[in-house]
Amino acid sequence: MTEQTRHKGVLSPVVTPFDSDLLPDISRLAAQCRWLLSNDVGLALFGTNSEATSLGLTERGEILDGLVQAGLPASRMMPGTGTCSIPDTVELTGRAVDHGCAGVLMLPPFYYKGVSDDGLFAYFSEVIERVGNANLRVYLYHIPPVSQTPLSLALIERLLKAYPTIIAGVKDSGGQWENTEAMIKAFGDDGFDVFAGSESFLLQTMRAGGKGCISATANVNPAAISHLYETWAAPDADAQQAALTATREIFQSYPMIPALKAAVAQHSGMDDWATVRPPMVELTAAQKQDLARDLEAAGFTMPGLKEATHA
Amino acid sequence: MTEQTRHKGVLSPVVTPFDSDLLPDISRLAAQCRWLLSNDVGLALFGTNSEATSLGLTERGEILDGLVQAGLPASRMMPGTGTCSIPDTVELTGRAVDHGCAGVLMLPPFYYKGVSDDGLFAYFSEVIERVGNANLRVYLYHIPPVSQTPLSLALIERLLKAYPTIIAGVKDSGGQWENTEAMIKAFGDDGFDVFAGSESFLLQTMRAGGKGCISATANVNPAAISHLYETWAAPDADAQQAALTATREIFQSYPMIPALKAAVAQHSGMDDWATVRPPMVELTAAQKQDLARDLEAAGFTMPGLKEATHA
Repeated sequence: MTEQTRHKGVLSPVVTPFDSDLLPDISRLAAQCRWLLSNDVGLALFGTNSEATSLGLTERGEILDGLVQAGLPASRMMPGTGTCSIPDTVELTGRAVDHGCAGVLMLPPFYYKGVSDDGLFAYFSEVIERVGNANLRVYLYHIPPVSQTPLSLALIERLLKAYPTIIAGVKDSGGQWENTEAMIKAFGDDGFDVFAGSESFLLQTMRAGGKGCISATANVNPAAISHLYETWAAPDADAQQAALTATREIFQSYPMIPALKAAVAQHSGMDDWATVRPPMVELTAAQKQDLARDLEAAGFTMPGLKEATHA
Repeated sequence: MTEQTRHKGVLSPVVTPFDSDLLPDISRLAAQCRWLLSNDVGLALFGTNSEATSLGLTERGEILDGLVQAGLPASRMMPGTGTCSIPDTVELTGRAVDHGCAGVLMLPPFYYKGVSDDGLFAYFSEVIERVGNANLRVYLYHIPPVSQTPLSLALIERLLKAYPTIIAGVKDSGGQWENTEAMIKAFGDDGFDVFAGSESFLLQTMRAGGKGCISATANVNPAAISHLYETWAAPDADAQQAALTATREIFQSYPMIPALKAAVAQHSGMDDWATVRPPMVELTAAQKQDLARDLEAAGFTMPGLKEATHA
């Protein structure tokens, strides 16, 4: 694996389309991935906003296989492969590496609470050793509001010392800029690539030496987020950032996953896109109307989506 | 399924033995199960203290198959089958019902936080409908300190109305007696069996009309806990309860899972029993010595364990 294939820029935890029987629709997902790529957004499949943990282990493998088979480039994929158990994480991670994915985004085991850094270090070590592939690139997934299992700077330092080429970076979804900045300062020069967990921190992250962002709302606003990534040193960067943050705030005022899917449904003209798997709950008709009105008032559009999803 | 096969009394989330390669040792587990049954303790396999979420999906199926093959009675099993996803939960639950397990203990999906009762109701409904077997008996697993996903009385009421014979009861590991009592009062007469999540609440639970307890420390103190269950109306019940609670408090002063396994290792004479899977961490040598000393000072023994594990 060369440095050229390292992830950078903007990635999206791609939302997962379900049919009326709640089964994943791989061809609809492939079309969505193509639209994201056409907007310079990479594919962080199986993220929190992909409802990844609501997918079965077999389904996750089949979806990844199906997307590769459909011609989507593994070099632009960073699938989430972290589960609560070593064997399942090894299985998903091994399959991603075999497909040539340029990295995986790895949650810590998230069932037990208050686990020690020693336990987390042993967990990640076992996974890396059992996958046993020098092409593996692990992006650690720090998302304490959901996983309730933070990844400390001390843990990252130990992992980087033990696996300097394999530990490739982090997605920081903790929402604390000080922590993102501390990660960049501590490890950014060691080939450890820090991605903000939302585009609200994209400009700060780029100015501090980070590599981009992996964000839920890149599912719906990919072009504008990519544009800020490309032009973060331009004079209008702060204005761009303010606009991105304003759009994100509209989505954040609804339950995020159902809102993302409702927007994709509305702008693609494919109602099925609004379907979520329990325990998520689809937006009500009234919520969908409110969201559409809020987005329209903000001049929000999703250019090219309809054409891409009906191609 | 007849009322005779309903679970009652004391069950243990059976600790899972691993070999030096961290793989489950089914024959050692089978021996442990036999010892628990000989002490009138049922088999809540794949519980929190079984490190169930640290097992792979395939492993869980294989362990259950292996125990049934080894002759352990499915009528005494209440395996944990709840995962974060509908397909994996359906797979594990279906297999348990096919084996004739007298019930399953079902965690709610535990990755997303703050999910609604509507979402949880839809989740459990989908699982029950997809398993599609009238013999299914679901015990709901309320363990908010770990799952961070409480099961409200309103949710239980909805589930009981929709699936009156299938929703069979609850394990309340919330540690709030008021909640356990409220569940018994609200639903105890509707064929909804309430089990305390620890023997510290066993006597209160029996006096209030509950059905027993499912407790980590039943792995190490099964005879005494069963004895209180059998004699809870006897004059010495409060004294028995105080003794049980004192023993449990010794274990609670260490990380619980490693401490249970250290005690089994010590009293069986099989050192391998102390092995845990990451993210759990085995007790240090010093901790093991301290635990052994604390237990010895309390006159703690595990009668018959050595013979059972070497049989």
